[in-house]
Amino acid sequence: MSDTGLQMSRRIRRTPFTDSVENSGVTGFTVVNHMLLPKSFSYTVEEDYWHLRENVQIWDVSCQRQVEIYGSDAELLVQKMTPRYIGSLEIGQCLYIPIIDENAGMINDPVLLKLNENKYWLSIADSDVLLWAKGLAIGFNLDVKITEPKVYPLAIQGPMSEDLMVEVFGNKIKLIKFFNFEMFEFLGVNQLIARSGYSKQGGFEIYFRGFEHGHKIWDTLWKAGQKYNIRAGCPNLIERVEAGLLSYGNEFTQENNPYECNLDKFCSNESEHEFIGKSALSKIKLEGISKKIRGIIFDGDPCPPCSKPFPVFSKDKVKIGQITSGIYSPRLKRNVGLSMIQRNYWSIGSEILVNTNDNITRKGLITELPIP
Amino acid sequence: MSDTGLQMSRRIRRTPFTDSVENSGVTGFTVVNHMLLPKSFSYTVEEDYWHLRENVQIWDVSCQRQVEIYGSDAELLVQKMTPRYIGSLEIGQCLYIPIIDENAGMINDPVLLKLNENKYWLSIADSDVLLWAKGLAIGFNLDVKITEPKVYPLAIQGPMSEDLMVEVFGNKIKLIKFFNFEMFEFLGVNQLIARSGYSKQGGFEIYFRGFEHGHKIWDTLWKAGQKYNIRAGCPNLIERVEAGLLSYGNEFTQENNPYECNLDKFCSNESEHEFIGKSALSKIKLEGISKKIRGIIFDGDPCPPCSKPFPVFSKDKVKIGQITSGIYSPRLKRNVGLSMIQRNYWSIGSEILVNTNDNITRKGLITELPIP
Repeated sequence: MSDTGLQMSRRIRRTPFTDSVENSGVTGFTVVNHMLLPKSFSYTVEEDYWHLRENVQIWDVSCQRQVEIYGSDAELLVQKMTPRYIGSLEIGQCLYIPIIDENAGMINDPVLLKLNENKYWLSIADSDVLLWAKGLAIGFNLDVKITEPKVYPLAIQGPMSEDLMVEVFGNKIKLIKFFNFEMFEFLGVNQLIARSGYSKQGGFEIYFRGFEHGHKIWDTLWKAGQKYNIRAGCPNLIERVEAGLLSYGNEFTQENNPYECNLDKFCSNESEHEFIGKSALSKIKLEGISKKIRGIIFDGDPCPPCSKPFPVFSKDKVKIGQITSGIYSPRLKRNVGLSMIQRNYWSIGSEILVNTNDNITRKGLITELPIP
Repeated sequence: MSDTGLQMSRRIRRTPFTDSVENSGVTGFTVVNHMLLPKSFSYTVEEDYWHLRENVQIWDVSCQRQVEIYGSDAELLVQKMTPRYIGSLEIGQCLYIPIIDENAGMINDPVLLKLNENKYWLSIADSDVLLWAKGLAIGFNLDVKITEPKVYPLAIQGPMSEDLMVEVFGNKIKLIKFFNFEMFEFLGVNQLIARSGYSKQGGFEIYFRGFEHGHKIWDTLWKAGQKYNIRAGCPNLIERVEAGLLSYGNEFTQENNPYECNLDKFCSNESEHEFIGKSALSKIKLEGISKKIRGIIFDGDPCPPCSKPFPVFSKDKVKIGQITSGIYSPRLKRNVGLSMIQRNYWSIGSEILVNTNDNITRKGLITELPIP
């Protein structure tokens, strides 16, 4: 079913780069935050995987919408939304933060950007954090203004990304540290550029402003990228699974707490600061969790697309979890997956069975993340 | 671009009926509330339009997710969320309500169902109302529990829908008045059935509980529906546009207020009850609005798919708005559209020009809604 058509309409918002993406031969989209995200081009996922590891790609990730929180209570509100302590974040830094509800259920896992003392952006995964933040702000009567600014992230990913970015934006690009950002001018508009991105191959995200000029920055990068063998791409499923990069809605939902998602180190719930879900989170920590996200390596021919989760069983056929993202790794020459696995079976190295929804049962092993 | 593939994953949730929909030959999906909504089957939109007006169809509209608000402050919270007065709603009734933010911007336009004095469902369009409601409840410290219950609406639409429903659920179906609901048993589970639906051809919505038994109710209705020439279908764009049924995200967004959406009669902001956005809404009413949703009939061959809005111009080439949903009506033998049009040009009968993104400019007329 992976090629069943997506019907387009205004509700599924186009981006400043959708025309360019179409001109680059996009063959499939998905929808994130009511916006198009390209999912495939004319090459196979394997071809794009190897290309990403060796060259540079340009990705339209505009669907990483920003939630801007501005005002004298901005820090207070952001801190209410996350168990991670944000008080030591400096202007110009990014921070990955779990957002949880009153039951410690995951609502999103955005990257937080501190623009100034009173202004933050949350660069979000697929849920309407804007409504969550606005609801809280109104209820708590906070002095903040919450909006979705006209900002459209464009990612440059891969080992040649720094060389390409230097050509377009100058040597100052090299000074940006990982998970930091700086401002750069393009066509007279200040553009925020961070060293970040949804791959482990290195790269940058341009938080692009100027919808109508989307094709200009795309074309500029495309032209400069020719000598680096640039390709239009998108988050690569093989690379993402190997790297253990989680996807909200796939690996975890509002039914899951941060500990189940291996986000322990982002939960400072023994510190002084208050946040929504603090008591629920402390209770979960005390009682322990019953399942956790793990990697899985499994045998056999390349598995079919994981459009429905693959059930996972113990050696004695007890259902112990499911693979939520799975694909064949041409580098490891094995199938790899991200899975939620029950406590008694989550030990690294445990032997398991995977049913790949094609009536084939495959042998596998529980692994750490990233998958070694 | 309308047939560009949709990549499937767990994040784009399947429904209890997705297997049945696939077995019925679905050829395209869209995504609403992080869930699959079928958009086309093996027949053309025109064929399905005529079929819907004369027979009966079964639609998987599970994506109309329910937001359940339960507790002693449930009515208080629901009333805070809408300018429509809900105090006279009785148990067993449905009510269409605009939901607005503090600026009177539209957040959603769900159908509200009153299950009992302390329990409401909001059957929502495409935005995470759950997060909005939960944020407000936490901020205002209200005594409510807010969840997404495991309820999956299945619509039976078309002139033969009552006959079919009577065969499956008995004569009591006939007693359900429009926008009311009753409980019916199916396989030992109480099922809520309302006389409602996203067409003007009459019909019912079964708020189905029992995910794993989805195929059983589908098959039961399918079998009983054979003598009524039942088809698997979905909201029909021609019928929807002619009927003036608006779609959140298409015809209006959070940038629009209820008056711009012709929802004046659902705004009782001169009454006593308090709601979020009341002062903003009163100010807008006082100052008047600058644009409004209208129908448009326009000439020429069948227009291309309206995957991007069609710009609308006055006779003297001034841009005055855009068509957000447009299609050829085989009944009217003209193209029809839903549009947001500026004040000085919105008079019924005004002559306008439509650019259908195919380099063709077509003559048209502003109409009322529904399109006469």
